[in-house]
Amino acid sequence: MSAFIEQLDAAAARNRSLLCVGLDPSLSAMPIDNIAEFNRAIIAATSDLVCAYKPQWAFYEAEGIPGIEALQATIEAVPDGIPVLLDAKRGDMDNTSRAYAKAAFETWGADALTVNPYQGHDAVQPFLDYADRGVFVLARTSNPGSAEFQDLRVRGNGVEGPLYEEVARQAVAWNDNGNIGLVVGATVPDELARVRSIVGSMPILVPGIGAQGGDLEASVQNGVDQNGRRVLISASRSVIYASKGGDFAEAARAEALRLRDAINAELERMGKPWP
Amino acid sequence: MSAFIEQLDAAAARNRSLLCVGLDPSLSAMPIDNIAEFNRAIIAATSDLVCAYKPQWAFYEAEGIPGIEALQATIEAVPDGIPVLLDAKRGDMDNTSRAYAKAAFETWGADALTVNPYQGHDAVQPFLDYADRGVFVLARTSNPGSAEFQDLRVRGNGVEGPLYEEVARQAVAWNDNGNIGLVVGATVPDELARVRSIVGSMPILVPGIGAQGGDLEASVQNGVDQNGRRVLISASRSVIYASKGGDFAEAARAEALRLRDAINAELERMGKPWP
Repeated sequence: MSAFIEQLDAAAARNRSLLCVGLDPSLSAMPIDNIAEFNRAIIAATSDLVCAYKPQWAFYEAEGIPGIEALQATIEAVPDGIPVLLDAKRGDMDNTSRAYAKAAFETWGADALTVNPYQGHDAVQPFLDYADRGVFVLARTSNPGSAEFQDLRVRGNGVEGPLYEEVARQAVAWNDNGNIGLVVGATVPDELARVRSIVGSMPILVPGIGAQGGDLEASVQNGVDQNGRRVLISASRSVIYASKGGDFAEAARAEALRLRDAINAELERMGKPWP
Repeated sequence: MSAFIEQLDAAAARNRSLLCVGLDPSLSAMPIDNIAEFNRAIIAATSDLVCAYKPQWAFYEAEGIPGIEALQATIEAVPDGIPVLLDAKRGDMDNTSRAYAKAAFETWGADALTVNPYQGHDAVQPFLDYADRGVFVLARTSNPGSAEFQDLRVRGNGVEGPLYEEVARQAVAWNDNGNIGLVVGATVPDELARVRSIVGSMPILVPGIGAQGGDLEASVQNGVDQNGRRVLISASRSVIYASKGGDFAEAARAEALRLRDAINAELERMGKPWP
C-alpha cells in the first residue's frame, strides 16, 4: 500500500471523515479578492473535518501567474497529514507525462493527482512511478455528457461492458505500486457501485455532491469498500461559497460539518461507524 | 470557417509549409539553460518554414513559475500570423472547462489548444465557444499504448467501429463554429486515413514525426484533405535538438527546412503542390 493511501486512511480516521473539500476559487464568486487568503481561511476552518483537499488546477491557471502562486500558497497552507489531491486531469505520451508528473508531485508538491486514461497505460505509468503518491484515474465522470463515450459498450480482454468499466479493470491491472484510485461522479450511483465491485478496496474520488446535485447517501452506500472506507466524497462550491459574506469561513465550516456528519450517519446505518 | 483556420491556412500558404514545430523545452537536453532564450532562437530561425508552433504545456509547468513565464515569453516571440497551438490536452466538466479555456485563450493567448474527449461534448463545448480559436480533439494518439482504449470497438449512433472513429464522428457533429481539428499520430497512418475520411477538410494535427519514428510520407498522403492541405505535420525533439551545440538554432533551421521540403516533395508527387 502506498504512502499516499496510508496518509489518506490516517487523515480520514483522525478526522472521522470521508469528506474531501474542493478548493475551486473563482474571483467572481468569492467574497474577498485574494485567492490564497480565501483558501487559507477555508482550510483553517475545515481541516479537522476532511480527509483531503482537492484544488482544481483550472481555476488557478485561469488567473495566470498570480493564480498559480496562489495554488502554491494553498498547498503550503494545508496542514501536514491532510493529503492534497490536485485535480488537473493530466495525461500524455511517456516523456510528456513524466514532465506532468514532475510538475504535480515535485514542483507543486501534490500528494495525489487526477489523470485521464484516454491515451492508455503508458500515458499513466509515469505518474504511477511516483509510488508514494496517489493517481486517480477518471472512470465515470459527473458531468451531463459523461455517458457519451464512457458508457459505450466495448469488449476488452474478453469482458463486455461499458468503457468506464474497462478503464476500471485496466486500472486494477496497472496497480503494481498500490497507488491508483478511480474517479466516479456522485451523479451516477449505479455506475459507482459497478466500479466499486471491480476495484476492491482502491480509493474512489466521488465529486458532484452539492452544486452538481449528486446523491450523498447513495454515494456513500455505493462508494465505500467492504470496510465502509476508501471513498472521498467531494464537495466544492456548496462548501466554499456557503456564504458570500464576511462569515464565509464559518459558513464553510458549518456546511463541511453537516456533510461530514451526514456521511457518518450513513456509515452508522450501514453498520460501519468510525471506532 | 473560424478565424483560427483562416490564420492557419494563410501561414501555411505564405511559408509553403505544413510543418508544425513543437517547442518542448527540457533543461537536460538544451544546450543553454534559459528556456525563453532557447525558444526565441528556435523561432527566429524557423518562423518562415512553419505553419504553426506547438508548445507542450507539461515541459513549462515542470519548471514551475519560471517555466510558465518562459511559456509566456515564447508565445509572445511567435511572429503575428503564425498560430500558436498550445498542447495541453485539457478537458473537464463545464465550469472547469470554461476556466481552462479562459486560461489557454485569454490568460496565455494561445490561438488553438488540444483537448481530451473522454468527458464528452459538454466538456469540450466551453473551448468551442471561443469561435475564433482552434480546438484539436484527441482521436488516435501516437504513443504505444494508444490502442488500449482508442481502438476498442464501439457502436455509437448506429455505426460500429473503433472508439477513435466515434470521437471523430462526434467532433464533426460538434463543429457548429467551424473551429474543430483532430489529433492523430504519425505512427498510425491507416488510422489517420480513416479519420480523414470522416472529418472532411477539418485540420488534423499529426505529431510523432522524428523522435517517435512516425512515417512522414504516409502522414502526408493519408493526412491531407482533398486539396492537399489542412494537416499539421508536427516534429519536436528532432528539430529543436538537432544539435546540442552552440549551432542549435542553425541546425534546427536545417532540419525544419529538410522536413518542410520532404512534405512538399510528397505534395508534388500527389499532384497537390503549392501554387
